[in-house]
Amino acid sequence: MATEDGASADVVSAVVEAPRDEKVKQTLPRVNSIPVVTRADGAEYLEIKDLRGILQPQDSPFVDTNNAGAGFVGDKDLVRISIMNYESDQSSGSHRDFGPQQAAALYDPAKNQTIELPDFALRSGPRRTIYHNPKDVCAAIVTCGGLCPGLNDVVQNIVFSLDDYGVPEDQIFGIRYGLRGFLDRHAKPVQLSRSKVDGIQLKGGTVLGTSRGNAKMPAIVERLRLWGINQLYVIGGNGGNAAAHAIAKECAAQGVVCNVVGVPKSIDNDIQLIDRCFGFDTAVEEAQRSLISARVEARSSGGISVVKLMGRQSGFIAMNASMASGVVDACLIPEIRLNLDKLCDFVKAIMERKDYCVVCVAEGAGQDIMDTNGPKGTDASGNPILQDIGVFLRDVFRKRFPGVDVKYIDPSYMIRSIPTITTDRIYCKVLGQGAVHGAFAGYTDFTVGLVNTHYVFLPTTTIIQFARVVDERGRQWNRLKTAINQPDLA
Amino acid sequence: MATEDGASADVVSAVVEAPRDEKVKQTLPRVNSIPVVTRADGAEYLEIKDLRGILQPQDSPFVDTNNAGAGFVGDKDLVRISIMNYESDQSSGSHRDFGPQQAAALYDPAKNQTIELPDFALRSGPRRTIYHNPKDVCAAIVTCGGLCPGLNDVVQNIVFSLDDYGVPEDQIFGIRYGLRGFLDRHAKPVQLSRSKVDGIQLKGGTVLGTSRGNAKMPAIVERLRLWGINQLYVIGGNGGNAAAHAIAKECAAQGVVCNVVGVPKSIDNDIQLIDRCFGFDTAVEEAQRSLISARVEARSSGGISVVKLMGRQSGFIAMNASMASGVVDACLIPEIRLNLDKLCDFVKAIMERKDYCVVCVAEGAGQDIMDTNGPKGTDASGNPILQDIGVFLRDVFRKRFPGVDVKYIDPSYMIRSIPTITTDRIYCKVLGQGAVHGAFAGYTDFTVGLVNTHYVFLPTTTIIQFARVVDERGRQWNRLKTAINQPDLA
Amino acid sequence: MATEDGASADVVSAVVEAPRDEKVKQTLPRVNSIPVVTRADGAEYLEIKDLRGILQPQDSPFVDTNNAGAGFVGDKDLVRISIMNYESDQSSGSHRDFGPQQAAALYDPAKNQTIELPDFALRSGPRRTIYHNPKDVCAAIVTCGGLCPGLNDVVQNIVFSLDDYGVPEDQIFGIRYGLRGFLDRHAKPVQLSRSKVDGIQLKGGTVLGTSRGNAKMPAIVERLRLWGINQLYVIGGNGGNAAAHAIAKECAAQGVVCNVVGVPKSIDNDIQLIDRCFGFDTAVEEAQRSLISARVEARSSGGISVVKLMGRQSGFIAMNASMASGVVDACLIPEIRLNLDKLCDFVKAIMERKDYCVVCVAEGAGQDIMDTNGPKGTDASGNPILQDIGVFLRDVFRKRFPGVDVKYIDPSYMIRSIPTITTDRIYCKVLGQGAVHGAFAGYTDFTVGLVNTHYVFLPTTTIIQFARVVDERGRQWNRLKTAINQPDLA
Amino acid sequence: MATEDGASADVVSAVVEAPRDEKVKQTLPRVNSIPVVTRADGAEYLEIKDLRGILQPQDSPFVDTNNAGAGFVGDKDLVRISIMNYESDQSSGSHRDFGPQQAAALYDPAKNQTIELPDFALRSGPRRTIYHNPKDVCAAIVTCGGLCPGLNDVVQNIVFSLDDYGVPEDQIFGIRYGLRGFLDRHAKPVQLSRSKVDGIQLKGGTVLGTSRGNAKMPAIVERLRLWGINQLYVIGGNGGNAAAHAIAKECAAQGVVCNVVGVPKSIDNDIQLIDRCFGFDTAVEEAQRSLISARVEARSSGGISVVKLMGRQSGFIAMNASMASGVVDACLIPEIRLNLDKLCDFVKAIMERKDYCVVCVAEGAGQDIMDTNGPKGTDASGNPILQDIGVFLRDVFRKRFPGVDVKYIDPSYMIRSIPTITTDRIYCKVLGQGAVHGAFAGYTDFTVGLVNTHYVFLPTTTIIQFARVVDERGRQWNRLKTAINQPDLA
Repeated sequence: MATEDGASADVVSAVVEAPRDEKVKQTLPRVNSIPVVTRADGAEYLEIKDLRGILQPQDSPFVDTNNAGAGFVGDKDLVRISIMNYESDQSSGSHRDFGPQQAAALYDPAKNQTIELPDFALRSGPRRTIYHNPKDVCAAIVTCGGLCPGLNDVVQNIVFSLDDYGVPEDQIFGIRYGLRGFLDRHAKPVQLSRSKVDGIQLKGGTVLGTSRGNAKMPAIVERLRLWGINQLYVIGGNGGNAAAHAIAKECAAQGVVCNVVGVPKSIDNDIQLIDRCFGFDTAVEEAQRSLISARVEARSSGGISVVKLMGRQSGFIAMNASMASGVVDACLIPEIRLNLDKLCDFVKAIMERKDYCVVCVAEGAGQDIMDTNGPKGTDASGNPILQDIGVFLRDVFRKRFPGVDVKYIDPSYMIRSIPTITTDRIYCKVLGQGAVHGAFAGYTDFTVGLVNTHYVFLPTTTIIQFARVVDERGRQWNRLKTAINQPDLA
Repeated sequence: MATEDGASADVVSAVVEAPRDEKVKQTLPRVNSIPVVTRADGAEYLEIKDLRGILQPQDSPFVDTNNAGAGFVGDKDLVRISIMNYESDQSSGSHRDFGPQQAAALYDPAKNQTIELPDFALRSGPRRTIYHNPKDVCAAIVTCGGLCPGLNDVVQNIVFSLDDYGVPEDQIFGIRYGLRGFLDRHAKPVQLSRSKVDGIQLKGGTVLGTSRGNAKMPAIVERLRLWGINQLYVIGGNGGNAAAHAIAKECAAQGVVCNVVGVPKSIDNDIQLIDRCFGFDTAVEEAQRSLISARVEARSSGGISVVKLMGRQSGFIAMNASMASGVVDACLIPEIRLNLDKLCDFVKAIMERKDYCVVCVAEGAGQDIMDTNGPKGTDASGNPILQDIGVFLRDVFRKRFPGVDVKYIDPSYMIRSIPTITTDRIYCKVLGQGAVHGAFAGYTDFTVGLVNTHYVFLPTTTIIQFARVVDERGRQWNRLKTAINQPDLA
Repeated sequence: MATEDGASADVVSAVVEAPRDEKVKQTLPRVNSIPVVTRADGAEYLEIKDLRGILQPQDSPFVDTNNAGAGFVGDKDLVRISIMNYESDQSSGSHRDFGPQQAAALYDPAKNQTIELPDFALRSGPRRTIYHNPKDVCAAIVTCGGLCPGLNDVVQNIVFSLDDYGVPEDQIFGIRYGLRGFLDRHAKPVQLSRSKVDGIQLKGGTVLGTSRGNAKMPAIVERLRLWGINQLYVIGGNGGNAAAHAIAKECAAQGVVCNVVGVPKSIDNDIQLIDRCFGFDTAVEEAQRSLISARVEARSSGGISVVKLMGRQSGFIAMNASMASGVVDACLIPEIRLNLDKLCDFVKAIMERKDYCVVCVAEGAGQDIMDTNGPKGTDASGNPILQDIGVFLRDVFRKRFPGVDVKYIDPSYMIRSIPTITTDRIYCKVLGQGAVHGAFAGYTDFTVGLVNTHYVFLPTTTIIQFARVVDERGRQWNRLKTAINQPDLA
Repeated sequence: MATEDGASADVVSAVVEAPRDEKVKQTLPRVNSIPVVTRADGAEYLEIKDLRGILQPQDSPFVDTNNAGAGFVGDKDLVRISIMNYESDQSSGSHRDFGPQQAAALYDPAKNQTIELPDFALRSGPRRTIYHNPKDVCAAIVTCGGLCPGLNDVVQNIVFSLDDYGVPEDQIFGIRYGLRGFLDRHAKPVQLSRSKVDGIQLKGGTVLGTSRGNAKMPAIVERLRLWGINQLYVIGGNGGNAAAHAIAKECAAQGVVCNVVGVPKSIDNDIQLIDRCFGFDTAVEEAQRSLISARVEARSSGGISVVKLMGRQSGFIAMNASMASGVVDACLIPEIRLNLDKLCDFVKAIMERKDYCVVCVAEGAGQDIMDTNGPKGTDASGNPILQDIGVFLRDVFRKRFPGVDVKYIDPSYMIRSIPTITTDRIYCKVLGQGAVHGAFAGYTDFTVGLVNTHYVFLPTTTIIQFARVVDERGRQWNRLKTAINQPDLA
């Protein structure tokens, strides 16, 4: 650990190998140490790297008005990460519930290993002292990976905030189609401005375009140098944040002065530490619609409906949409092992009791129960290619329940592509603003997030150690199980 | 043809063979003659059969108030079927456009054959003289075939109207799971009442349940006799109406006195003569959402989106949703032949011009261009099992456009299962009321519908001669083609 | 009446006094004669004026492809106006139901007077021969009066169609803020193009802006001459169409060659002859939401909810939203006299029976029962300023039902300002296209509409004789009354 | 303060005077002391009273399955209330931001006074030991005050949870129309059951009915005794919770053994300490729609739109809906003083810049700038009757901006009455479950809530000390002000 005076030992440097000209590895770095700083009063917090040694400090343009009368965020204001205080280790969730319920540690269920965290994280928000002259900023924004509600909201608010600081319009760029846009001559960056991003929050998707993979580090950093980009905003998931981290490292290696800021995006909600990912509320809202449709179909025919929802490693959407809808009989998520016979017996019991059944399955569930003739390998983001559990279950049910109408619904693309509801809209606004505040504060290699209802800056490497998952023994999953009376299906 | 005095020669009797204990044939009857009556003043109209000779005429219970002050519908009030009057056979749509645009004849594109119709149809609505004592009515309602928005609306309003006439609550039954419910001991009919159907219009699907097939005629009519049903309401598509007709015939054969009334239901909108089927507006509204999602996905990745919509023989949903959405580049419907190479060339041109492409395909399109290894035969409704054109096109595009992201969206179940929008809600109400008015007027073997914005009674056999399809040379298709600049892809 | 050879006597010329520099009178012209032409085969139809004698005929640009293979609309193709054929004058609606149910005559309930119409109207659509060289067309589009869903859809499709014909982008103008935009130097016309109107259908309102009144005829026509406008598209209500007619007359008087085309817009749906106004389906859909809210409020408090909906002279929205919602206990419309004591007695009875009550009132209802201290006169459109019946009823109920919670909901602006649902979206597209087809065909002083599900051209003067109203003894009103058991409240 | 061993001194007993037969005072109790307990390890938390001394401890019925495998919540598990840790008192929000951002103290802006809180609150959730035999529980549920999305969700989940514990169906009652239902012979309690509350979450409002006021304490407690109610669930706002507290006190005074549990409901979101009130997300979502309509209206006419939203003392809905919508030019809330001239000058500047303006005003804003001829006094809940700032501003703008179209939108009832979105749906479920868990755990005079994303039990008196308000100098208000560039209008 580092003290405030000394630089933090580069505890993560050995971990993420610079992926030179290679795909960013899906196998995210596993570390036993976390960058921590100790404040003068002894409070420990997650360290955020900065370029302050290289950049020139100056007053924020908002100093004149004392930031519209509200003052600034203290540069060492802290937000507490852990807020649960168990009476004993017998308490439900103790030592295991590492979703929003507890964040003083990262728990890796795959390794059954816990990584301790400091008590605090740095608060997000505008600083009185900034480290860029707005007139000299040249910013680039890129959206990576799959679609998620809110991408346009975040892009819009980064642009708005840059404009508020006084960055000239012709120095704000959008990179087309993800990281590919750094290198593809046919997809040149577009200039962005307040008027160009006006209204884009009402459209789904990303106006910049997106793609998976293509994290060719030295080439990308070469472009940053060539184009003079000194603030880079990367909106992406675990893969996108890993790429952002690699870019920050490569910048340091090449001596390119550029603040690299991540905005964590995961419709699966599988990012560590933060309360939730933007777009998640919207996705659950829309996912619920498909579950209700599934119930109508099943009930009308006395049949079985299978709905496949997003969730490669983490079943948050399936869990929450099932909880909200009140119509699901069985909810299957990647975190919980699945025994096909037990499932079929349960479905049979349901059918006998009420004549129809609704099964909600996250796409990553039950991968081990399917035969191995399906596609293998990984996609361009490095994610393992999943076999289709939805189609598999549909076919299993058709065989096991002859004469019963089995319907299959896959609403994924319709969930990903819609505009945000207001909770996400506001969340995206503040994330976008925070990203810009952090870059102007000189920070780099960090990402913005909401922790215990407060906005913070987080070290990029920390949140992508491994995917956040539903805690099998946590209260959220327990609430769903008891709400729908789902037995142990493992 | 019959005159008013003489009974109409049973012109259709030879046509629909009584399908004793057999599945109702998908191959619907083809007739060259249509039951027509001539009114005293010479006006000719489609004949509706009745059981007046057997039943006792009496005053409507609404006579006291002169039907809330508005009087009654004349028993021979007529609604004109054809309203287009072409200057010459050079006019667009002349002799060919037999959708809502023209209805003086039924045009069968498969046989390129036209069946002439009389000028008028009987007006729907309450009659001053009715032929059932409401206290003695025992009514049954059944919903058949696939889901469609509005089923519950129609069921509700049949019940409301029966209640308005004074039919006792314990004499109104709902048959479970389609025609199967007549014979399945595990799915007994449910008693319906005003309070039991209160609010069901807000739910999708059908509270009665539905199924395909099972038109075992003598057994069903035996149940009608056993249960004392003297009014049967069948809400179904071409298959359901054919079954209703067969039931009416079998009732006549067995001497069972029962008015059999159809309410035409087809989410594909493929019923002849009527302006549109209930639920169609709702379906188009919802289908449009998936097209807009498809555009967002395609645009965000610089890819191709394929959306498969309902439409086995008729592409009305695909056509109208494409027209409304304004985001579709190619719309493929069953009525228009499809050349795969021409389609791919067109998609390629689109991709080159604007970098993304949205293809909307009706499920029945392009059946002849897929190889023949897929499933064969017919489903329980007698519909040919279709091969999956959506998946086929997705795979074709993936092969022909390597590196391009191709996404496939199939929103069908989410479209079928939603509650109605208000236009359909009102439409369903009036259809349900009209069905009951018709039964009380003594009519049988008929169906209710909207013709040129007016409600009518139609002979069941007439509307199911063959499926209504989009006229390739009609104005509606022409408007879409010119709106999206779609070339000839045949 | 005129024959085809001779010019029609200008039967309306004496009627609409040229409103030189004056507000267009709300008191619309009352005529006993209607412009009618007789086709060679004897069919009579509503005459549309044209400028063909002045303009040069030429081939449509779509002749090359035979209009994408579908051919053209015959210049004398006709659409039948009346389709009801009553058995006797005892039939419900006979001689009185002049909504969409019957259109062979215009019935003026204020005067209890009927104006006969010919059997047919001219069919809308693209003609083989056009009378403008697209390169020489200079078009202007203006939206007048209150907001209505679909204004942007119509504007967009007029622009799209002009572009399809080949009108250069810099010759298409949008007039700002209604007719005011012709004269207000601070609100100059904007240039429109395909790209500029892309996506505007997703926004509510009108991108052009709108206003009431300001029909200063010679000045407006002077601007048309000055700016070289030879096609003018006026999207407006009874007032806007009256202004369009006056402009057409003034053009003739001043020798300005300009086709003046109306697109009838009335959220009240009070335009004669046409099946419905664009935006009406959308308005009813949204209005229903407020009625359902009203029920929730009333039921939760055991109180009374009053919802005021649009409808100055015509209660179509109130009637249809009440019908669709199924939650209204009393529906009050301008067409039906209202006795306050009877209403209160009815509400009292409802409250005693079920403990809550929902009253839906059109804004123009019950004007005569309010005391006369309210505002008087007319607004800028010439509409009489209405007293607020919603607030009045709220206060009456509060007095008469002490201790009962009375809530008042006025959703008008939220209904007017939303984007269209798909039925209206498609309708607006075809209206916009038809308007342009008609102008290119050389027609002027006409408006486009949907009659019996077919698109037609109609003489502007004909549809604005007087407002279309709900027929007190027609089937629509009767259906609602019987559906909600509303007694006679007059 | 109390230690765990000794009973807490009844620090609040002197504060809330038992309001015998009187209306619960709007002037909520102001205390300088807060009930605090110290855990064995020294952690201090907000004390929850209990009836454990009177009731019999026993195993939870969920012990058999170890609560579906997830174990139980420790009876002294704690949730940290304050999580912000400022670097200095110069930090934005330091010592002032007592919304969700900081909760270690309650700040009363009216008195500029801070009440300190302990660090922790008791965690909500199921306990291993319960203090009621489910078979002997007789529960009553009552909803009080104005409507709010989610009331039915909470009612449903209280019933579900009681059923899960094994409370017999005929021992669960719903009190009609708020506290009035205890005393009104015409509104008898209704029996509730799992099947009776099935689906009610899809309806807005409250199936139980609600009302304001009527907190006649001894009479209500007499009814509890008479009816044998030993668990009472009160869903209400500051007034309802004050009543619940008074009932708990009266029960103690009369020796009636009944756990009184509050569920805090405030669409204004003005309850202290908790992250947000249920229904708030839904309300903001719907409120945003009216703001977007307002923009469409203003833009289309070049005018001014005024939207009045809920918010008597607290402007959270107005603030968040304005933030989310992105269309508001001025947002006026009760917490911020308003100078009418400054507002008009600002609106004028907006109009000159972009020709239209949208003003969002919370109903409690600007009460001091209106003349004093309006209604005075308090409503049945004891809330001061507000003058109508919306109508006032509309009229002011009409006077100050002659010729400019000023439109006024009041969507309040349509916002209150809708069903919940999924975030609120899940929130309500967990609140309802927690309320029942707390009652079975023997606790009384407490309320359930979400604090820093965790569910807790809170002493009823603590949360209703005074209304939570928007912090004028906090980050949320600052973000809105800077987002819309709103100047100081005081």
